Amino acid sequence: MEHLAWIAVDWGTSHLRAFAMDAGGHVLDKAQSRDGMGTLSQDAFEPALLRLVGHWLGSDPVTVLACGMVGARQGWIEAAYQSVPCKPAETGVTRAPTRDPRLNMLILPGLSQASPPDVMRGEETQILGALARNPDFDGVIALPGTHTKWAHISAGEVVSFQTVMTGELFALLAEHSVLRHSVSSTDLDSDAFDAAIAETLSRPERLAQSLFGIRAASLLSDQSDSLARGRLSGLLIGAELAATRPYWLGREIAIVGAPAMADLYARALKPQGVAATIHPGDDLTLMGLCLAYETLRKAAT
Amino acid sequence: MEHLAWIAVDWGTSHLRAFAMDAGGHVLDKAQSRDGMGTLSQDAFEPALLRLVGHWLGSDPVTVLACGMVGARQGWIEAAYQSVPCKPAETGVTRAPTRDPRLNMLILPGLSQASPPDVMRGEETQILGALARNPDFDGVIALPGTHTKWAHISAGEVVSFQTVMTGELFALLAEHSVLRHSVSSTDLDSDAFDAAIAETLSRPERLAQSLFGIRAASLLSDQSDSLARGRLSGLLIGAELAATRPYWLGREIAIVGAPAMADLYARALKPQGVAATIHPGDDLTLMGLCLAYETLRKAAT
Repeated sequence: MEHLAWIAVDWGTSHLRAFAMDAGGHVLDKAQSRDGMGTLSQDAFEPALLRLVGHWLGSDPVTVLACGMVGARQGWIEAAYQSVPCKPAETGVTRAPTRDPRLNMLILPGLSQASPPDVMRGEETQILGALARNPDFDGVIALPGTHTKWAHISAGEVVSFQTVMTGELFALLAEHSVLRHSVSSTDLDSDAFDAAIAETLSRPERLAQSLFGIRAASLLSDQSDSLARGRLSGLLIGAELAATRPYWLGREIAIVGAPAMADLYARALKPQGVAATIHPGDDLTLMGLCLAYETLRKAAT
Repeated sequence: MEHLAWIAVDWGTSHLRAFAMDAGGHVLDKAQSRDGMGTLSQDAFEPALLRLVGHWLGSDPVTVLACGMVGARQGWIEAAYQSVPCKPAETGVTRAPTRDPRLNMLILPGLSQASPPDVMRGEETQILGALARNPDFDGVIALPGTHTKWAHISAGEVVSFQTVMTGELFALLAEHSVLRHSVSSTDLDSDAFDAAIAETLSRPERLAQSLFGIRAASLLSDQSDSLARGRLSGLLIGAELAATRPYWLGREIAIVGAPAMADLYARALKPQGVAATIHPGDDLTLMGLCLAYETLRKAAT
């Protein structure tokens, strides 16, 4: 591909997204597939990448800079972590082995925290992008997803962070537990959601009991599936807010993520007196990768 | 089969157990299969039963009395519920339709509770058996399992009860979530279990955060899989004890269930000043079925 300078890659558990970049930071082309880290064995990463971007390559070596779960222990190669507090994606890329000599495959470091133990891979690049847009941000960035991250940001650094498995728990309960018979709606009742948030924040110790109550209420009354789904979502996000209260209480909050999910979190926080701002996540990942590439390029020259 | 008077059936989500009974309440033969309710479509129940016990039948009709999830909405037929407070399995069997005229197929009622909404199917028969052994029991019976039941018993009746999905949550998290990479041991570290119980009972609001910490600790330190498994089990049973505190605080507790699981619950309760007694569950189900059959027989004569 003419003018190709490097390739930016956002490689998560369930997705692979690639961007052909020119030297000026413009996107020449993009491509994506479902070859996420979760579906690939270690020797399948390079073929998956070549299937997606092979037609962009010429005869010269090209730097590919990736972030996300591609650097996990079950990924292409286990990439390093940076310990917080630090500026994300700043130093310490890990080079992955390749058979194709044209690939200079680099993986950005994740973040780690010693106490309480925690790790992130991918979200640090979104945080880097968010900080580029708003360099003076002082507060908390929440990144809802399969594993929601809450990151305390100050002076351009991630000071500490916390992971809550709300998205994964919701999917397991809604699709694989006995509750699946009650929450099959694609709608989510807002009133039931709000009530469950309030209930779990005020009595978090009741969570374990409330979950089965969703199924029982469906069997004994005419509870609709959208009401049950709203309640399940509210109980789990409520439990998350109970656990992360030290993060969001009295701080400025920016929510980075897909609009529907970000809206839910903003809705849950509002009655707690928190007015969160919302920012789409995909753009921020690419922006973070571009910034990390710039840093690498400067360090190399 | 000579002397066959009736057939007792314990039919749960994942198992089917049948007992050929004589008129004196003695077991002539027994059989079991993995044709649990969870694996059968509605028209597959009768064939599954006939595969297991068909060779016991002669030409005369025989009463088959069953308890458990066979009477759930996804079962052979949705059997009635008795509302608490009541003596379990006392009245209101539901007759299931059969093609084979030799089967007089009866399903015992489950228990229901209006507020907070809750249901049980199968455990009420174990409770009936437990009360036969100890008719003056006044306290709480805990029945750990996929869905643990806590039942408040007084004057031979179930006064109220509460269901917690601890077993199902543990299985989903240990086998299907990101934590599966950390808890693959079959051992369970007792110290980690005890510490997690204490932690969750004192700070139940932190549960949502603590779960992912199990994975992070495995990645960042040399945490063994048995320690991680002990911690996961302790966090979830701790959350259950936090939710059921009004049930076990200051009451006599009898734990009915498989020995390994019953021991874990007894261990978790001990530091809370609760000395629970332990009772194997399988015998009690059969005893409950026999008592319910006696009641039916007397009512019919």
